Amino acid sequence: MDIIVLKPDATDEEIRHIIKKLEGLGLAAHLSKGTERTVIGVIGDTSKVTEETDDGFRAIPGVESVMRILKPFKLASREFKKTPTIIKVGDTAIGGRKICVIAGPCSVESKAMMIETAKQVKKAGASFLRGGAFKPRTSPYSFQGLGEEGLKYLDASRQKTGLPIVTELMDPRDIEAVEKYSDIIQIGTRNMQNFRLLLEVGQSRKPVLLKRGLAATIKEWLMSAEYIMSRGNHNVIMCERGIRTFETSTRNTLDLSAVPVLKKLTHLPVVVDPSHGVGVLDHIPAMAKAAVAAGADGLLIEVHPNPEEALSDGEQSLKPEMFKKLMKELAPVAKAVGREI
Amino acid sequence: MDIIVLKPDATDEEIRHIIKKLEGLGLAAHLSKGTERTVIGVIGDTSKVTEETDDGFRAIPGVESVMRILKPFKLASREFKKTPTIIKVGDTAIGGRKICVIAGPCSVESKAMMIETAKQVKKAGASFLRGGAFKPRTSPYSFQGLGEEGLKYLDASRQKTGLPIVTELMDPRDIEAVEKYSDIIQIGTRNMQNFRLLLEVGQSRKPVLLKRGLAATIKEWLMSAEYIMSRGNHNVIMCERGIRTFETSTRNTLDLSAVPVLKKLTHLPVVVDPSHGVGVLDHIPAMAKAAVAAGADGLLIEVHPNPEEALSDGEQSLKPEMFKKLMKELAPVAKAVGREI
Amino acid sequence: MDIIVLKPDATDEEIRHIIKKLEGLGLAAHLSKGTERTVIGVIGDTSKVTEETDDGFRAIPGVESVMRILKPFKLASREFKKTPTIIKVGDTAIGGRKICVIAGPCSVESKAMMIETAKQVKKAGASFLRGGAFKPRTSPYSFQGLGEEGLKYLDASRQKTGLPIVTELMDPRDIEAVEKYSDIIQIGTRNMQNFRLLLEVGQSRKPVLLKRGLAATIKEWLMSAEYIMSRGNHNVIMCERGIRTFETSTRNTLDLSAVPVLKKLTHLPVVVDPSHGVGVLDHIPAMAKAAVAAGADGLLIEVHPNPEEALSDGEQSLKPEMFKKLMKELAPVAKAVGREI
Amino acid sequence: MDIIVLKPDATDEEIRHIIKKLEGLGLAAHLSKGTERTVIGVIGDTSKVTEETDDGFRAIPGVESVMRILKPFKLASREFKKTPTIIKVGDTAIGGRKICVIAGPCSVESKAMMIETAKQVKKAGASFLRGGAFKPRTSPYSFQGLGEEGLKYLDASRQKTGLPIVTELMDPRDIEAVEKYSDIIQIGTRNMQNFRLLLEVGQSRKPVLLKRGLAATIKEWLMSAEYIMSRGNHNVIMCERGIRTFETSTRNTLDLSAVPVLKKLTHLPVVVDPSHGVGVLDHIPAMAKAAVAAGADGLLIEVHPNPEEALSDGEQSLKPEMFKKLMKELAPVAKAVGREI
Repeated sequence: MDIIVLKPDATDEEIRHIIKKLEGLGLAAHLSKGTERTVIGVIGDTSKVTEETDDGFRAIPGVESVMRILKPFKLASREFKKTPTIIKVGDTAIGGRKICVIAGPCSVESKAMMIETAKQVKKAGASFLRGGAFKPRTSPYSFQGLGEEGLKYLDASRQKTGLPIVTELMDPRDIEAVEKYSDIIQIGTRNMQNFRLLLEVGQSRKPVLLKRGLAATIKEWLMSAEYIMSRGNHNVIMCERGIRTFETSTRNTLDLSAVPVLKKLTHLPVVVDPSHGVGVLDHIPAMAKAAVAAGADGLLIEVHPNPEEALSDGEQSLKPEMFKKLMKELAPVAKAVGREI
Repeated sequence: MDIIVLKPDATDEEIRHIIKKLEGLGLAAHLSKGTERTVIGVIGDTSKVTEETDDGFRAIPGVESVMRILKPFKLASREFKKTPTIIKVGDTAIGGRKICVIAGPCSVESKAMMIETAKQVKKAGASFLRGGAFKPRTSPYSFQGLGEEGLKYLDASRQKTGLPIVTELMDPRDIEAVEKYSDIIQIGTRNMQNFRLLLEVGQSRKPVLLKRGLAATIKEWLMSAEYIMSRGNHNVIMCERGIRTFETSTRNTLDLSAVPVLKKLTHLPVVVDPSHGVGVLDHIPAMAKAAVAAGADGLLIEVHPNPEEALSDGEQSLKPEMFKKLMKELAPVAKAVGREI
Repeated sequence: MDIIVLKPDATDEEIRHIIKKLEGLGLAAHLSKGTERTVIGVIGDTSKVTEETDDGFRAIPGVESVMRILKPFKLASREFKKTPTIIKVGDTAIGGRKICVIAGPCSVESKAMMIETAKQVKKAGASFLRGGAFKPRTSPYSFQGLGEEGLKYLDASRQKTGLPIVTELMDPRDIEAVEKYSDIIQIGTRNMQNFRLLLEVGQSRKPVLLKRGLAATIKEWLMSAEYIMSRGNHNVIMCERGIRTFETSTRNTLDLSAVPVLKKLTHLPVVVDPSHGVGVLDHIPAMAKAAVAAGADGLLIEVHPNPEEALSDGEQSLKPEMFKKLMKELAPVAKAVGREI
Repeated sequence: MDIIVLKPDATDEEIRHIIKKLEGLGLAAHLSKGTERTVIGVIGDTSKVTEETDDGFRAIPGVESVMRILKPFKLASREFKKTPTIIKVGDTAIGGRKICVIAGPCSVESKAMMIETAKQVKKAGASFLRGGAFKPRTSPYSFQGLGEEGLKYLDASRQKTGLPIVTELMDPRDIEAVEKYSDIIQIGTRNMQNFRLLLEVGQSRKPVLLKRGLAATIKEWLMSAEYIMSRGNHNVIMCERGIRTFETSTRNTLDLSAVPVLKKLTHLPVVVDPSHGVGVLDHIPAMAKAAVAAGADGLLIEVHPNPEEALSDGEQSLKPEMFKKLMKELAPVAKAVGREI
């Protein structure tokens, strides 16, 4: 809270009450009486004033609105840390000059299939292998993932290829297993505001890939990063994956403008997932290139050796040869914006 | 999957491949060649065909789209159970002729405050007491609730007033405590697709109040109810609490049309939360009345003895006297639509 | 523009430049230096400062944001006129104690059909007859309305029943014809920001029913009312008819909270169109009742003697007997909120 | 209409009624009785079946839903014309290998300012000059444009630089003047479904730049192109400029996935307007590059010699030197995707 706008009929008593309340919080009030409205500028360190205190002020009869000028996130902000955060995983770095590509199937389906996919995406130039062992599915009757068995197949794929692993954590009770087998822990779209899960990964030493919620504003998304960082884990990667709008030609609306907006607000690296973002095979390459041109630090791309038989997201998974072709097309785009891939 | 539309250039081989695949699933294909498109009607029990199988068909080159005619939820559907579900909690029933009002503060703040509020809302005619001990907050720096201590204060309030308790569960690890002290377990908006949490309450014997997600379609919301029911707990109460749109005059857009839509699709009772739905004190009474007129089985209303000092949601909490006035105004509206309150 | 927030690194020179610019507009600056941000409160009559001037200030390097506290609409505001506007058309008044029902088919299809519908809706208790002679259709191949011939049929229906006419104007070149035959001119959803059309009806002596745009905020909608009023026609009726969201169970999402929001912001009467708002026959009665309970001054309902053969909107038109039944059900709801119908 | 899904309780009589009705339209019915639903496939040329006929079928009691498989647009579709449309204006072509840049101020403000801007954008590599003489403004109190005087300044700028002119038409009554002075007629966002205006420019010989409506689906947008084409003007340029969502960090959400979606559905050229799309100066260059990488045929960029004094959109206008820098940065991105600029 930084500015309190009063109603035209706010009484002197109400104003005195507000000032006293501000003083009780160690803040000073700076009255500015306009011809039509009185505005109170709040002086002092308002960064510790919580949301609920703001709401309390809103509940005072003479108050029309309470506005916050300062951003509610701190550790995640550019003001807190001016240089971009580069997250190192083994020999690979996310957030540097090189654009990282995280590729693999939606779900881990079998050991052979994972190792085969890992080899293929590595050959095409991917830096990370993705695959879900715990799957959040809209229907209770859909395949829910192989669980810990799936994590072991990811581990085996890493051993064969050297590719570090990105996999999703859905339940705080699985953290030990996921931490053990993964290199980066993914927090999925539907869990972006599962605050207990955020606090849990905040205590992990593993980097966290934080997907944007379907209806999350960029500020709420950064607040979720702040949750993780507030527990000591500063290695958060923001992942844009489409928001929900009225448009039905695509599965979601990929909000690429989130890339430059985040780059200005935060020092954290930004990755884009065009596979979920559009959800239509034919349009993924165009949006992958656009993401790189917009300044993304990485891409998350679903690749499956046989999409027709995939246990999830078959309709939006690239075949390995399509992924290989895309990687080739991405190289000049990366170069055109001063990056490499 | 019930209808497969082919691309204009689908080959005979592709069509044969699709038919063979359907037969492998124990289904029959019914070809319908139009002048511009060929459509395959799928005959047989498609209710067991999962989403991922649909996506697999979508990944076949000759396929343009795959449409599902049957609803993906079963236990929650009107087809499964034609009569409305009435959920009994002690002497109170949700889903019957009487409209249930669940009232209380956003957060449990102290024992005295809870008991005081409980007495007041009971006197005004509420049937349930609400209050959060575990609070999902956008900011890690906001008040996160009193935890188990808060549950004990709710228990004390119930003992004093006889009002059964509705309180939120955020983390599967808290289920024992929440089950112990509550009469109805609330699943909050941000956890509507926290599937592990849904499975957990699916094994509970306590009724579940399932709030709609900010960007959840009514079908996805019913799929979340299905998750709970699929584990054996059929006592689910749907709670509309506003969806996220572009409009900023209200905190959310309360989608009251969800009430008649749900009444047609499901046998489960439907409750409306106008407090979160509009988030502006002045507009809550009008929307509470509208919810009753639209056919809601209950209301969830935030009431706080001193909103200005509330630790959360102060700006949208009714004072006890305003709540009392609203309850009086609701009575004739309920009567006008053949209900009582 | 009422508050200018400066960037943390705004220079003294930039601040001086802003102050000078404000003084050039006849305004005074009131500097409020906080610990982290400097804020300039603007003193004086900012009501004449236009949007583009605000944008100009936004373009100054040291400026972070420019906020407007005062509402951009004037004539439409409650501050300008405290008492509700009651619009009289013949013996009927919109905005008074009695809730007005405007009923009729989407399109005028024939003279016989119009007269028949008019008689039926009048008998059921409607106060106005609606029907479109000029039809905005998504497809150029759909029925575009009967044009002036249709207006004549409306006129004939009025002569037979005495019901005043509400009909849509789509093109400024048709104003004479529409003015001649109608009692209230409707501006449709797709034309809410057709500013030339708004200026045209602003010069008319006929009341204007202004439908909300599909993606219009309540403030933008009031700005469109302001356009009409700025030309001298103060008889504007606001008509909520659903906004576009991600939900697909209903044609649009009827935003009933717009009713109390508008009642607070403006003195103009508010009407609700549940037919377009939900677009599904079964749900229209529930939403009509909810609209009345929310405080609407009127309803716009599509009624067609034979929906199956309707030339437009057949799927959401009530048959006359359904309309009659609804009117009976609405009476006690109106009474419950201190109105009559 | 191509598929009619019946309710589970549809009677034989209702089915016979539907079949008879289809036969009356010269179509045949193909019944497919599933275990849980009966589906009627419609055989014959359904392309002439209008929307209202579909709605009429929906109004039949036994019908659950009516689905259309074929796209409702024809002339605009890839099926109708397989090769991309290249629109020639003088020596310039839109839709070919070269990416066209249309640059200039939001509003025409003076003759000197227009000529100066034209010279600067030409020097930086723009192919077209934009500028509004008729301005759709949210507020009636904002600058509404210079009208025909403004068109003359555009003409003067063209004479000085040779740059063809893109300018907006808001009112059918201005078509002669706009046609006289412009090379491409722009239809603005708020007029995308001003159908009378669309029919008007459909009779013009000038190409039309059709901006997407704030809440328009891609299909509705193509239907508006179809309106124009149905009158004989096949030179339509689709312009993506952002849609309205819940996100407030940007003015609109630029939907870049519309580019590949359109490229698949239509042969018409696609242009992107990042200036309105994001509305924040700092983010325009990133989104301009992303648009080119996504496959756009052109860009529409606001450039103003002195944004601080602009009569509209100052906060999102690039200064000429920023535009020059952007043009240089765009060249390698265009090359990376096989284009030039």
